Amino acid sequence: MIERRETRAVFKGRVQVGGGAPVSVQSMTNTHTEDIAATVEQIVELTELGCQIIRVAVPTLDAAKAIGSIRGRIDLPLVADIHFDHRLALESIRHGADGVRINPGNLSSPEAVAEVVRAAKDAGISIRVGVNSGSVRERKGLEVARHDGDLAELMVRSAREHCEMIESLGFRDIVVSLKASDVPTTLAANRAFAEQTDYPLHLGVTEAGTADVGTVKSAVGIGALLAEGIGDTIRVSLTGRPHEEVRVGHAILRALGLERAGIEIVSCPTCGRCEIDLAGLVEQVRDKLPEQADRPLTVAVMGCVVNGPGEAAEADVGIAGGKGVGFLFRDGKKLRKVPEEQLADALVREIEAMSADDEGISR
Amino acid sequence: MIERRETRAVFKGRVQVGGGAPVSVQSMTNTHTEDIAATVEQIVELTELGCQIIRVAVPTLDAAKAIGSIRGRIDLPLVADIHFDHRLALESIRHGADGVRINPGNLSSPEAVAEVVRAAKDAGISIRVGVNSGSVRERKGLEVARHDGDLAELMVRSAREHCEMIESLGFRDIVVSLKASDVPTTLAANRAFAEQTDYPLHLGVTEAGTADVGTVKSAVGIGALLAEGIGDTIRVSLTGRPHEEVRVGHAILRALGLERAGIEIVSCPTCGRCEIDLAGLVEQVRDKLPEQADRPLTVAVMGCVVNGPGEAAEADVGIAGGKGVGFLFRDGKKLRKVPEEQLADALVREIEAMSADDEGISR
Repeated sequence: MIERRETRAVFKGRVQVGGGAPVSVQSMTNTHTEDIAATVEQIVELTELGCQIIRVAVPTLDAAKAIGSIRGRIDLPLVADIHFDHRLALESIRHGADGVRINPGNLSSPEAVAEVVRAAKDAGISIRVGVNSGSVRERKGLEVARHDGDLAELMVRSAREHCEMIESLGFRDIVVSLKASDVPTTLAANRAFAEQTDYPLHLGVTEAGTADVGTVKSAVGIGALLAEGIGDTIRVSLTGRPHEEVRVGHAILRALGLERAGIEIVSCPTCGRCEIDLAGLVEQVRDKLPEQADRPLTVAVMGCVVNGPGEAAEADVGIAGGKGVGFLFRDGKKLRKVPEEQLADALVREIEAMSADDEGISR
Repeated sequence: MIERRETRAVFKGRVQVGGGAPVSVQSMTNTHTEDIAATVEQIVELTELGCQIIRVAVPTLDAAKAIGSIRGRIDLPLVADIHFDHRLALESIRHGADGVRINPGNLSSPEAVAEVVRAAKDAGISIRVGVNSGSVRERKGLEVARHDGDLAELMVRSAREHCEMIESLGFRDIVVSLKASDVPTTLAANRAFAEQTDYPLHLGVTEAGTADVGTVKSAVGIGALLAEGIGDTIRVSLTGRPHEEVRVGHAILRALGLERAGIEIVSCPTCGRCEIDLAGLVEQVRDKLPEQADRPLTVAVMGCVVNGPGEAAEADVGIAGGKGVGFLFRDGKKLRKVPEEQLADALVREIEAMSADDEGISR
């Protein structure tokens, strides 16, 4: 239902951001990155909660060097968060980071930025240009920050200048974020930037605060933009452990229908053609299904073979009943004929088999 | 920063909804309305949390009769929530309800609706027309509900028909709500209705769920609309006690800058003109202020008498420092000269005096 803004596709490892890819949920570890065991443990926990891209702080060369070991032990694309010293970015890239996040405005010089861009290009990874209201405010002096509109405009101008400079080096794999600590400025900056460019946008509200207030602030800020079609990847910033960030991130996407939760059963309205007990069949299936699917699944339970196969074909898996007999579908293909009384069981077994297949691929 | 949609002004008791009034936060008791003591107790608790309009369920004549006693013991406008039986609305109005919420589609007949409208008109109270996706879905049959867009359109059409019928009776004090259990439908219905009419809108997402998921769903749905300038009063629906609804409601408004929280200190960036220790002064003021102000206050702490008075004049109260001496301002007027070392104390005493004045007015 949401018509999403068209953006260029950029990759963080194997995760596509922009270009029509699903909105991804990311988070950032709050461990010392040098503590490889603790960092890996947290990333694994976040992965299980549905985190799709992970960022780690890289304030030291030791942190940058840890990236190689961490990356080998996790399943997520890993982004290095860099401030002030571009050599930390170079070292992170050397150790296998899937992306770097920089704020070109706080690196030492345009030459330093150019060095990072060349390294990212050689490594085939992407760069996030992260502009925060705080850094713009600092650079331009407090007096400009008295009006939200001005601040948003300065953030947009700053981001655009950075992007133009990086593109002038022949580098296009850029994701941009424009984060302010207040929602109206965040909205204004992202709306304006979205109108002017085709860069994928990473959404977030900085300093959103503790879980209670921060959840609302992030849901409002990120949600309002997503509802307007703006945003390609999101990070909810909350004070405390990052786990809640991932949960809230997915809740935002689900609220807007940008992500489906677990198993969704679709079934047709019964009509004169229906020759099976459809309501009973739906109930049987619902009872037998596991609470949580390993991935979002649309399960179709259709009443007849007239519209049923069409609808079932749109779903991931489904059954279409007939006269005492039905068909099992998966990924749009008819698998086999099943007696009516075995339809529910056949469907549930197929769903279980799909989960098992997934595990074989991803673990 | 948000340009709000222009709507007609409607009153719930002394609380204005629409017509440029601040967005109000409302909630609904989950006590048995017949249990007057429990209902009053919950309303008093909700009032302390910032609830501005309260709704009670009126499923029986006893509940309607309880309204008189409840209303005499609370400070909030009280709205009676009516379903199916219009006599419950008539009885609620007779007992002093400040408003009734009806879904004309589930009352017995147009005549029943007309009776309620006449009673509301005679009593000088307002009506909320509450259309839910559930009731539309029921009436029109499940097949229409398969596409969110269709459902939103049906909700809008239903609300407009109800409003036209009520207006045809010469009654204009109507607030409208269009609530669906999913955010995209809620957004689509409210956007379309907002474009077509000037009725103030009561925003909410029905069946938003338990506090964790429901908070995000409400914040996204209500927040996205408010960010577009749509919405005049809000209710967050959460399963459980209503207290959290009020907290989340205010958090949504604050996130969008539609409400200010407690005391906000603004201070100028120090410059070459500053002859006092401004940072120290701000810190002193912050330490001495009470945690919570009785109402939102902007407090200005300015460094000099060049820009200071202008900025202090925009604030509710403030000080502007000079050479060993400063001025105290309130509501844009210079009150008196104060020695530098007494500035912080003078400011804090003034704020306390303002709170005392407020209490004199409102209690």
